[in-house]
Amino acid sequence: MKKVLITYKLNPEIAKELDGKMEYVLPDKSGFKREEVLDMIADYDVLVPNFSFYTDKEIMDKGEKLELISNFGVGYNNIDVEYAKQKGITVTNIPNSVLEPTAEFAFALLLAAGRRLGYYDRKIRTPEGLKWGLYDEPGLPIFGKSLGIIGMGRIGQALARRAVASGMTIMYHNRNKLDKAIENKYNAQYVSLETLLRQSDYISLNAPSSKETIHMIGKKELDMMKSTAVFINTARGNMVDEKALTHALKEKQIWAAGLDVFENEPKVLPELLELDNVVLSPHAATKTLEARDEMGLEMIHNILGFYFGTYPISKVV
Amino acid sequence: MKKVLITYKLNPEIAKELDGKMEYVLPDKSGFKREEVLDMIADYDVLVPNFSFYTDKEIMDKGEKLELISNFGVGYNNIDVEYAKQKGITVTNIPNSVLEPTAEFAFALLLAAGRRLGYYDRKIRTPEGLKWGLYDEPGLPIFGKSLGIIGMGRIGQALARRAVASGMTIMYHNRNKLDKAIENKYNAQYVSLETLLRQSDYISLNAPSSKETIHMIGKKELDMMKSTAVFINTARGNMVDEKALTHALKEKQIWAAGLDVFENEPKVLPELLELDNVVLSPHAATKTLEARDEMGLEMIHNILGFYFGTYPISKVV
Repeated sequence: MKKVLITYKLNPEIAKELDGKMEYVLPDKSGFKREEVLDMIADYDVLVPNFSFYTDKEIMDKGEKLELISNFGVGYNNIDVEYAKQKGITVTNIPNSVLEPTAEFAFALLLAAGRRLGYYDRKIRTPEGLKWGLYDEPGLPIFGKSLGIIGMGRIGQALARRAVASGMTIMYHNRNKLDKAIENKYNAQYVSLETLLRQSDYISLNAPSSKETIHMIGKKELDMMKSTAVFINTARGNMVDEKALTHALKEKQIWAAGLDVFENEPKVLPELLELDNVVLSPHAATKTLEARDEMGLEMIHNILGFYFGTYPISKVV
Repeated sequence: MKKVLITYKLNPEIAKELDGKMEYVLPDKSGFKREEVLDMIADYDVLVPNFSFYTDKEIMDKGEKLELISNFGVGYNNIDVEYAKQKGITVTNIPNSVLEPTAEFAFALLLAAGRRLGYYDRKIRTPEGLKWGLYDEPGLPIFGKSLGIIGMGRIGQALARRAVASGMTIMYHNRNKLDKAIENKYNAQYVSLETLLRQSDYISLNAPSSKETIHMIGKKELDMMKSTAVFINTARGNMVDEKALTHALKEKQIWAAGLDVFENEPKVLPELLELDNVVLSPHAATKTLEARDEMGLEMIHNILGFYFGTYPISKVV
């Protein structure tokens, strides 16, 4: 029987899907560390990595039997996929189960940042409290405003669906222009990144992380944004220059941000934690028990699909 | 020229719509108080009340010339409309301008309460911080869940539109069952209040406040809700027994709440301010400068429509 090294604390009920088909090991704590993985990997055919270490050449070289890396996430910036490709190791990801939870959370951040819900909820609990006058501490509307989506893949489109129903107009930037049929569905306009940054009221980052996208939002891009712009990131922290963003928020060069991901998770820039015009969450876009189980199942199905053809698999390389 | 007493600090640019057609007075501070209104009202044909005092018999009796009360809000629980009706004083409200901002804010509260955004944003800033593990402090999903809307008027329907696009199913309770065409638009099911309370994953209160709806959500109704229920109120604070709700949240009898209105605004029950499973905002559902101006304009148009027929008016009595 092929052997699977699962390095994160997958719900054992979900892991049972492998029973009788694959041998597997689960950590009994939060997850296996890099050193433990290096010690164990030589015996395993399949690795399920986690996001606390980078699955690099060394791990893959020690994993002499490795045939499959089944990632627990849609993003795979935790894996050296180029090297996996060279070695003929298949890498899979889980685009389906993360789709709606992530778009849902991005929209929650957008609404909370624009309408100042995080700020209200924090300040109302302080001894000084909030001012309740009709014109005190107003937020920004969402209805009638434009949303610029950077990375109009499936998550971006699921976000657009919510935004359109909420009265927003959509522009997007993508490596490739989408089919007219998809554009028409959201009445979405394809624009350059610069146009998107200059014209959007709300901007959401939904592109995949790669070497090319590191700090794709930095000082230059922030300078292009409106002073009333609201920036949302549920993609990956390394795509944004966190220091430049913090500066722009502090100086009110842009109006607000909603951030679920950070450059050095779980660390957040201390200056960012001090700001009133940002809503912060701990990489929680898929943090529901239901989503975790569905993600686990999709990850398991990639393994079973790879070996037995019983499920379609989502292959990265 | 007819005379208008505007008791709240309307944007003077918006008030200019009255120039040359009506005489009017605006407060130079946050708003006129009840005693000031009582002193002045005898001279005025139109009163624009505010929510810091109740426009009662005494005010209407002193207002010998009063023909119109043009309210700055869709709810009119700040006015004794029965007595206005007896005296032949017309009362108008502003259902159009508050529609989308309120539905938008209700949905923002729903997402934030379910996905624990308020909690994350508060706790991440504390010295102890948050746990970032995959299964730590999960929220509840919205996609695939049911929303029960109590009061399926225009705001309830604008909320339903957002919810449907976010993958929710809709049930509603209303004084009257809606036309089949409207039900079909949201695939909304008409149910009894009890069924709604027992079966909904999320519950949003969007009914008008009246004598009959005081404490319509109390211990009995909270006892009917699921232990995973999330309750949202953007209607009026007096419709909910705040003490009973606070108890239910504290005892985790229901899962969370999102509250924009309170029984004794601007006071919030101190025990409520201590709870992690509630998102709180200062009656901010229409708190954007854009919404305030549109509301002001709709209120002014009710006055101009009443006297000159130049606009349709929204008449309460």
